[in-house]
Amino acid sequence: MLVIGEKINSSRRRVESALKSKDEEFIITLARKQKEAGADFVDVNCGTLLEEEKECMEWLVEVIQANVEVPLSIDSPNPKVVEAGFRKHKGKAFLNSISGEEGRIKPLLPLIKEFRPFIVVLLMDDKGIPPTAEGRLKVAIEVTERLEKEGVEIADVFFDPIIKPLSTDEKAGWVALETISLIKKEIPQAKTIVGLSNISFGLPNRSLLNAVYLAMAMGRGLDGAILDPLDSRIKKILLASKSLRGEDSFCMEYITAYREGILED
Amino acid sequence: MLVIGEKINSSRRRVESALKSKDEEFIITLARKQKEAGADFVDVNCGTLLEEEKECMEWLVEVIQANVEVPLSIDSPNPKVVEAGFRKHKGKAFLNSISGEEGRIKPLLPLIKEFRPFIVVLLMDDKGIPPTAEGRLKVAIEVTERLEKEGVEIADVFFDPIIKPLSTDEKAGWVALETISLIKKEIPQAKTIVGLSNISFGLPNRSLLNAVYLAMAMGRGLDGAILDPLDSRIKKILLASKSLRGEDSFCMEYITAYREGILED
Repeated sequence: MLVIGEKINSSRRRVESALKSKDEEFIITLARKQKEAGADFVDVNCGTLLEEEKECMEWLVEVIQANVEVPLSIDSPNPKVVEAGFRKHKGKAFLNSISGEEGRIKPLLPLIKEFRPFIVVLLMDDKGIPPTAEGRLKVAIEVTERLEKEGVEIADVFFDPIIKPLSTDEKAGWVALETISLIKKEIPQAKTIVGLSNISFGLPNRSLLNAVYLAMAMGRGLDGAILDPLDSRIKKILLASKSLRGEDSFCMEYITAYREGILED
Repeated sequence: MLVIGEKINSSRRRVESALKSKDEEFIITLARKQKEAGADFVDVNCGTLLEEEKECMEWLVEVIQANVEVPLSIDSPNPKVVEAGFRKHKGKAFLNSISGEEGRIKPLLPLIKEFRPFIVVLLMDDKGIPPTAEGRLKVAIEVTERLEKEGVEIADVFFDPIIKPLSTDEKAGWVALETISLIKKEIPQAKTIVGLSNISFGLPNRSLLNAVYLAMAMGRGLDGAILDPLDSRIKKILLASKSLRGEDSFCMEYITAYREGILED
């Protein structure tokens, strides 16, 4: 199970202010904490900085990787920002994200071919987000064919079924779960990922809904998630789910976490 | 989602002693508490009482139903005990359980036809518990054909994939999840159920594993569970999972529970 830490995102006010004031200490600490809590990648998004987004992305990649040994997820729809991030990045990065939309995939293809990142692919196209799991699978198949034709390794592709908030669409969670199952079955060489916290938008006790939905999606075979690795409930669910789906030999990781007090309420 | 409360089971020492001393107060309170916590049925098992099992089952059914308005799950492999329970029971009971084993299904068939209970069917046969999900589906198909031939309503049948303890088989949880998906797809007229707490046997922090596994199984479409409805973590997971799979209109039940403080840690 691959974890991308979501916290360095300029839509969070405290992060935006740290980016504007170039507060290295704050950013480095936030990256390090997420890594220590189990993040395999740290997402970096400075989209709200508009004209300064490109320069800020370069600064983020340099500052974090000079201080924390962690690969990053370059989170922007803007090809210029993505390219700037990739050029500064050491190691294999994540690209977050492309989709089946022509305007989103075409300008990023040359960068994908040059830098060979892992890729989040949002399952929508120029007609929007298909309402059914079958519709989202169709987008996944089309993008797979397109990327294969371009020589992209499909094992690097993480399809994101797109989780809409439950508060606006009560079937949103279920459709995304069904999509995960369909992708696992029909495109087994690819992987699946979700941006977790969207599910609980507008509802109380978001952490509970996020954590329970993570368990449900892991029970479907989910391969990765963009989430808050510092949330103690999420941490416990990740450990328990890993054991429960048979990926923790003799439950040693779970038992060790228990002994270290990590599973306590 | 149907909930069967598991707590009135003579394998629990306190319950066994209450049964031996005919402690009505204790049993009635335990039934009432489970009902109030959301149990649709209350399981009654007095298997450890051996020769007194039949008499004890009659006493349990009478005492509980005279005081708490709740249907029961008659939990015994012994046809004489099951019959005694059914004769005393008011309303549609659960039979817990039959299986694909000839010695388990044949003597109970006349009782099933006479009393028309809901039925838990353990997915094993005379060769044991099939190691794969496909093997367990095969048992389910055979039992379905057999029961249909006898005129049993398949909508009353709850197939139990059988959860072995994770501590003895690290793939046990995953195989049961795969079995749930297969049953939902191949025998959609039937239902699925799990005896939840077995998964965590022999491991620390059992409540966490039980709760997370419940979420995973509900994410596969699980229809019912035999569990401890008084466990506060289980309660929260049931509420959250119900909303997340789109069975809680406008999340009203979830939001109400939040307002009542039920979701608090």
